[in-house]
Amino acid sequence: MNGAESLVRTLKLSGIDVCFTNPGTSEMHFMAALDRTDALRCVLGLQENVVTGAADGYARMAGKPAATLLHLGPGLANGLANLHNANKACTGIVNIVGDHATYHIEVDAPLTADVEGIARPVSDWVKTSPTSEGIAADGAEAVRQATTHPGRIATLILPANTAWGEGSEPVAASIPNAPAPPDADKVEAAAKALSSGAAAALYLKGNVLREPGLTFAAKIAAKTGARLLAPTSNARIDRGAGRAAVERVPYVVAQAVERLAPLKHIVGIGDAEPVAFFAYPDKPSRVLPEGCQRHHLASDDEDGVRALEMLCDALDAHGAAPELAERSVPELPGAGAVDPDTIAATVAALLPEGAVVVDESITSGRNLNWQTAGAAPHSWLSLCGGSIGDGFPLATGAAIACPDQKVIDLQSDGSGMYTLQALWTQARENLDVTTVVFANRAYKILQGEMTAVGVEEPGRVARDMFGLDRPNLDWVSLSKGMGVDAEKVEDAVAFTEAFQRGLATPGPYVIEAVF
Amino acid sequence: MNGAESLVRTLKLSGIDVCFTNPGTSEMHFMAALDRTDALRCVLGLQENVVTGAADGYARMAGKPAATLLHLGPGLANGLANLHNANKACTGIVNIVGDHATYHIEVDAPLTADVEGIARPVSDWVKTSPTSEGIAADGAEAVRQATTHPGRIATLILPANTAWGEGSEPVAASIPNAPAPPDADKVEAAAKALSSGAAAALYLKGNVLREPGLTFAAKIAAKTGARLLAPTSNARIDRGAGRAAVERVPYVVAQAVERLAPLKHIVGIGDAEPVAFFAYPDKPSRVLPEGCQRHHLASDDEDGVRALEMLCDALDAHGAAPELAERSVPELPGAGAVDPDTIAATVAALLPEGAVVVDESITSGRNLNWQTAGAAPHSWLSLCGGSIGDGFPLATGAAIACPDQKVIDLQSDGSGMYTLQALWTQARENLDVTTVVFANRAYKILQGEMTAVGVEEPGRVARDMFGLDRPNLDWVSLSKGMGVDAEKVEDAVAFTEAFQRGLATPGPYVIEAVF
Repeated sequence: MNGAESLVRTLKLSGIDVCFTNPGTSEMHFMAALDRTDALRCVLGLQENVVTGAADGYARMAGKPAATLLHLGPGLANGLANLHNANKACTGIVNIVGDHATYHIEVDAPLTADVEGIARPVSDWVKTSPTSEGIAADGAEAVRQATTHPGRIATLILPANTAWGEGSEPVAASIPNAPAPPDADKVEAAAKALSSGAAAALYLKGNVLREPGLTFAAKIAAKTGARLLAPTSNARIDRGAGRAAVERVPYVVAQAVERLAPLKHIVGIGDAEPVAFFAYPDKPSRVLPEGCQRHHLASDDEDGVRALEMLCDALDAHGAAPELAERSVPELPGAGAVDPDTIAATVAALLPEGAVVVDESITSGRNLNWQTAGAAPHSWLSLCGGSIGDGFPLATGAAIACPDQKVIDLQSDGSGMYTLQALWTQARENLDVTTVVFANRAYKILQGEMTAVGVEEPGRVARDMFGLDRPNLDWVSLSKGMGVDAEKVEDAVAFTEAFQRGLATPGPYVIEAVF
Repeated sequence: MNGAESLVRTLKLSGIDVCFTNPGTSEMHFMAALDRTDALRCVLGLQENVVTGAADGYARMAGKPAATLLHLGPGLANGLANLHNANKACTGIVNIVGDHATYHIEVDAPLTADVEGIARPVSDWVKTSPTSEGIAADGAEAVRQATTHPGRIATLILPANTAWGEGSEPVAASIPNAPAPPDADKVEAAAKALSSGAAAALYLKGNVLREPGLTFAAKIAAKTGARLLAPTSNARIDRGAGRAAVERVPYVVAQAVERLAPLKHIVGIGDAEPVAFFAYPDKPSRVLPEGCQRHHLASDDEDGVRALEMLCDALDAHGAAPELAERSVPELPGAGAVDPDTIAATVAALLPEGAVVVDESITSGRNLNWQTAGAAPHSWLSLCGGSIGDGFPLATGAAIACPDQKVIDLQSDGSGMYTLQALWTQARENLDVTTVVFANRAYKILQGEMTAVGVEEPGRVARDMFGLDRPNLDWVSLSKGMGVDAEKVEDAVAFTEAFQRGLATPGPYVIEAVF
């Protein structure tokens, strides 16, 4: 068995089931091994940011990493932005990046690049595997790294001669059963702060935003009056009717400052604190009020769920009655132009139970959080690293992970254009994704940001650079060009009908909502 | 004047006229300065690999760098692959990459990334400009770096507070008049080798593949019998009727070995030697025959044209009658299925004088070099770094540089899908580009490479990963979705008619040739 086959079998043995790929010549032995063994489900993306973003979406829903297969330094580079997003989401991914045979590097062929250098800024672990005998052990270590709580980006570089040389037997990764345990002293300090009577909040990040973490948090809130907060963007929040509602920190700095102003204590689960997305000349980078005491219940690599359970113990909160979101179904909008609010009403009213919502709606979705709070229970996935172009790929990967759940992609048009190639993968795999394109035909956020830097009336150049008009994008043609059925709507009633058609379609469907 | 404006004015003062952009929030002050000064032509790309590839195409034809404007680490990452290609083409580009305000980095906001780390693998020069007073001088240095012969990638990182703080007066870059002079000893050694009577070749790279370098080379060939060779892929070759024909080293290793086998001496202009694109278990990485002596006339940073002129002097070759390609017009193909050969015949017959041909035809274009040797004089631009997805952007940038020349993009379908967003830019700027999509609906090259690694009959997984069918891409819909007129042809006569329509259209036009 050659090195490539020993690696494929190692991945399978270590629990990897899916490989998102965009292969090239240097990966041919790996491809041949995938072909021979039929060990992994291979999903092709026509650009690498689709591949890496899909791996992110898959892991967020499957709860375990996928592999990616990328073609040398430039193939990795094409997928780097969504690896950045995945890294900020604490998603586990095993990247297999082919490279030239080790002896071929020195001739400086066209595709020669510093693969490790490209990988490092987005990877928690990088290794070039120098020998075919060692690749199985390296592959197992890559899976162990990726699976380490809360999830890490592991990039394993596979020189062509490591792939084609004689390999060892496959190796099963040794994956820890549980994350690092929380620190009892921190639990005690948090309990003290939350019992002080002063205004307090839990700041939740990572897997505590799902059950059972959410229920522990809600009981603590019920017992102590603490608010439940989360970052603006999160890898996955399970929410909707019957679940504890979590306030997300607003994107707009002034709003964030205002919402957080009353706090005297904040208890963080995960390493983050609430911060501004960008810096502005007269605005703070940190949005907590002065004098608010930060407590650190658990760091990213510790078991946040167990920490919340221990906090429940310490506060004697297990019997508290948590406040859960009530089911509330907005009225379907009547005749009139479609806009973000009417879209939100329709989505909230019709969202199927168990749906996975991917939110890359940017400015169009600023109110979605409260508008959908009483919808049927669902999972909400957002862009965590701020690099737009994650929506289509996340939806693609989530749908691979959850073939029995409807995926709804709320997609702004500007962001969608970065990785529209994912629609082809949705068509090929017949993935059950309904995409709503918010077609405001602009980088709307930048029009707002221009005002924020003091330009009241953008000139010609800025208008040109922020406008996606002249020509307008036609998302129906773009979708159909990649084999996905689509329709365009401008009216709110037409949108509801289109959304119903999308939900009834057992495959990908795109609705371009123009407003 | 703030730092951003001092940088914009510095770029203009230093000879930069065009800025290819995909801006974000952290670049708002730079955008406002572009808007206020109207100093640079701004061209928007809807994904950053379009932006960087267009800057490459622009510089290859304009003979000077453009600027790019990219949004933080992830925006740079999205454009990295075409910067890799540009770097291998020795193209000069000035990247301006916005970053968070320096004091904002420590809060680890979602878009925080190691921007320098991402830039380094594809940049010859990287600097984060720490102060608004220093940004003008840094900008001038970036232009000087990018303009240094033969062309370099300079990446200047602009923190938001460097942009909005008080700047200095703009600074004009000090650009050298000429590249480093060649070494007379090397010229003498080369002359001796070429006069030895043994089989010899000149191996040409860079700007010697245009006039007047080409004529010097052809005179040397006429005088000594030396062959004229060039790498498989080149930034730009000026060729066609009336010009010296240059043999490109074949991509297929066995063919390259066979073509080079007779050589006893090779005289290189530029640092490269002929090498295999990829390594294979039983094939050499270096394709020159054993015993062939390498001579190094000029390195990449030396004046290759002057070196050839000096070699003409040394060989007394100025009076030699160079062999120039004769005008030969193939017959237009008759009825029958369209295929790469009938496309080549039509393109060769109808190519307008002065056309710029961008070649990302990959397997479909293996014979294009000789098929178009006698076409009307034109410039030929190829993919130099092997990272597919360069064709649409190169054509876009070349058309910005040469508004009075027709640009023909010979584009394979698999490669085209990486950066199809460039079509929107072509529509917005009404660029005179006719694109021929070679729609073989496969990563055809990989089907061949799979055979090369010993797999005679690819299995289901490999067929799935190499096929772009199920569903077929519809390039007419994709093009129209971005505002570009398009048609599909399957017949050779229909292709000729479509190509004539494309040539007659004073704007972008796409022909999907299905075979």
